[in-house]
Amino acid sequence: MSPDALTVLERCDVLAAVSSSGTGLTRVYLSPEHARVNELAAGWMQQAGMTTWLDAAGNQRGRYEGAEPGAPALLLGSHLDTVPDAGRYDGMLGVLLAIAVVERLNVEGVRLPFAVEVIAFGDEEGTRFGTALLGSRAVAGTWDADWWGLLDAEGVSLRDAFVAFGLDPEAVGDAAPPRDSVIGYLETHIEQGPYLEEADRALAVVSSIAGARRFELTMEGVAGHAGGVPFHRRHDALAGAAEVVLAVERIAREAGCIATVGRLEAFPGGVNVIPGLVEFSLDLRAEHDDRRDEVWAAIEAAAATTCAERGLVFTAHETHSAPAVVASPRLAEAVRGGIVSTGDVEPLTLFSKAGHDAMAIDALTDWAMLFVRCGNGGISHHPDEIVDAADVAVALDAFEATVRELAGPAPSSVGAA
Amino acid sequence: MSPDALTVLERCDVLAAVSSSGTGLTRVYLSPEHARVNELAAGWMQQAGMTTWLDAAGNQRGRYEGAEPGAPALLLGSHLDTVPDAGRYDGMLGVLLAIAVVERLNVEGVRLPFAVEVIAFGDEEGTRFGTALLGSRAVAGTWDADWWGLLDAEGVSLRDAFVAFGLDPEAVGDAAPPRDSVIGYLETHIEQGPYLEEADRALAVVSSIAGARRFELTMEGVAGHAGGVPFHRRHDALAGAAEVVLAVERIAREAGCIATVGRLEAFPGGVNVIPGLVEFSLDLRAEHDDRRDEVWAAIEAAAATTCAERGLVFTAHETHSAPAVVASPRLAEAVRGGIVSTGDVEPLTLFSKAGHDAMAIDALTDWAMLFVRCGNGGISHHPDEIVDAADVAVALDAFEATVRELAGPAPSSVGAA
Repeated sequence: MSPDALTVLERCDVLAAVSSSGTGLTRVYLSPEHARVNELAAGWMQQAGMTTWLDAAGNQRGRYEGAEPGAPALLLGSHLDTVPDAGRYDGMLGVLLAIAVVERLNVEGVRLPFAVEVIAFGDEEGTRFGTALLGSRAVAGTWDADWWGLLDAEGVSLRDAFVAFGLDPEAVGDAAPPRDSVIGYLETHIEQGPYLEEADRALAVVSSIAGARRFELTMEGVAGHAGGVPFHRRHDALAGAAEVVLAVERIAREAGCIATVGRLEAFPGGVNVIPGLVEFSLDLRAEHDDRRDEVWAAIEAAAATTCAERGLVFTAHETHSAPAVVASPRLAEAVRGGIVSTGDVEPLTLFSKAGHDAMAIDALTDWAMLFVRCGNGGISHHPDEIVDAADVAVALDAFEATVRELAGPAPSSVGAA
Repeated sequence: MSPDALTVLERCDVLAAVSSSGTGLTRVYLSPEHARVNELAAGWMQQAGMTTWLDAAGNQRGRYEGAEPGAPALLLGSHLDTVPDAGRYDGMLGVLLAIAVVERLNVEGVRLPFAVEVIAFGDEEGTRFGTALLGSRAVAGTWDADWWGLLDAEGVSLRDAFVAFGLDPEAVGDAAPPRDSVIGYLETHIEQGPYLEEADRALAVVSSIAGARRFELTMEGVAGHAGGVPFHRRHDALAGAAEVVLAVERIAREAGCIATVGRLEAFPGGVNVIPGLVEFSLDLRAEHDDRRDEVWAAIEAAAATTCAERGLVFTAHETHSAPAVVASPRLAEAVRGGIVSTGDVEPLTLFSKAGHDAMAIDALTDWAMLFVRCGNGGISHHPDEIVDAADVAVALDAFEATVRELAGPAPSSVGAA
């Protein structure tokens, strides 16, 4: 029996139960929960006829051979890690749809002229180490040795986390396949935005992914007694950071970019102590890199004004920078064909404001993406993230059709080679 | 040999080494560090001729009998707990000066017509449980049974912390002495403000202590994906909280009050997640309670405007409220006399914007306070908090003179009764 959309949704629920927090879903790179969902994904991959392995960066992988064993592979994938208090479809839905596509091929005994490999990436969100796409960048061969020293909130380095997960840091390069062993990468993902819902469509082709930059920011002032220090003598780091938070919103909004301060904490954090330090984050996205960089320059200028007025010191450390990337026209056309095969004869094309593993994989091979509508105004990174079962069913059909379309008009049957 | 200012300062350094954090000084109520400084204080009290005991609320106490054993007592004290990353004089200097005054009496063999009791309060700052003055309110007999359920950051209740410290929660009432067994309370404290430094004076009489209110605030919005949610669909709790932080500053400043947001954290705290919740604190002070309450009403109105514009929900939970309290004219006059005896013939009078244990003790007995200049613009609640050794010496003389002045012109010698 071919797995259907309900099986995919049930598996989303199974994965959602694997969380490091008692309430809600939080699952980060190289954690015990990561190991557990890798095992679950590996089981489903095997059930779908794939051979499986954990790669050198902790990504769970599976391979379904083509008509010729050892043929170059079409990669299908998405990620299994989450933001804190996440929804259950962001990433996981794409992994499970990829497995379900292979299972359909396997059930029918179809072998394609290429192998199909499913990758369940271990880190896309960057929740644990602040730097995103670690799993997909390992596969893309763009791992940066500087990352070994990245620390999580408990002070554990990325290197130590690798070792604790049973991985050999020296071998991380092995996660990247030779370029000539892959023919492309396809990813299905929830839209994480309101546009499909507003357009009353289930699916869209992704044209490109916005360039993103992320920064760790600090605003430094002078801590002091909440009662003893009059306003004219204060250097309140939190008041300064609040001005920057509002400047970020105003500047990005005016420029038509997307900017978010997601993390902010004041120190030392006493109820009766003027904050001497604020640590906060900035995530900046735009369809065009130039515009995004102009926005950052304007934010820096606004912070400098705040610092001059308040006697504060602002610092910015860039933790992530990715240029906007464009889908392969050939693969995007196949995705469009997949959608058309489901009856939507004029598929919508969207540009992704969110980053995706495809962004990293761009350095390795051609890619394309299929977006699936999510409800509640496209809410994501939140427990209210939701997809409709009917949309998942049509996404599965479209994704399967895309893969088959890439195989050409007459995919071979088992043993036909 | 009578202990001098250098001994007092050395003891400040000894206490400062007892910290729960590796760097900097943090010491909270009912912690292992609290037990350790209680032991140190008890040792110094005994060395000064006092009998000592830990009271039913974890305050360290010592008694130096007067000419008649069992006579009512003059209380001298301050606190041993700190804010996070604190200075070493706020509270501790007052405790150690009180012990040094008794040691001078003891060395000279002087017995006064009243006993002298030193109290080292265990909680003034409220760092651990968010509610301040727990130690002094136990002594004042104004303990509130509702506090037993207060939780620290690790989820430990105040009741459980009592038990873990070896205290019996049912006996907390025993910390309060009968009203007729005390004749007043004197406290020496650093100014924690810039006024003495600006006026080039070492000491001041305190006229009153500002009324303070403290609130735990939340701003609730909707978490969402930093890339996927356009600005017009966001309910960003942090942007809303930032507006409130700046409104607090603007409104309080215009009204001549003091207001501080000391703690603020955004949740869930992912770098690529729009904050759905912000938890923050507010500390509000004014010389007059009416003005302070007007400021709070204006802040609430500003928060309501922000919520209406941004689709957010603001809540406020009051954790502390203390009316402004006024020093006893009789005791304040004695403090003035003590300062005059050191050669400052026209002592400065200041109103305290910071809260002090005397605020709680106001419910038990008359009180007065002596302020000591602190340097660096009066910085406090910060490691740069500093006092001058010469100022500590003159404060010790003035404090001793104040106590002797209350005993009348001819204090009795040992055995003179």
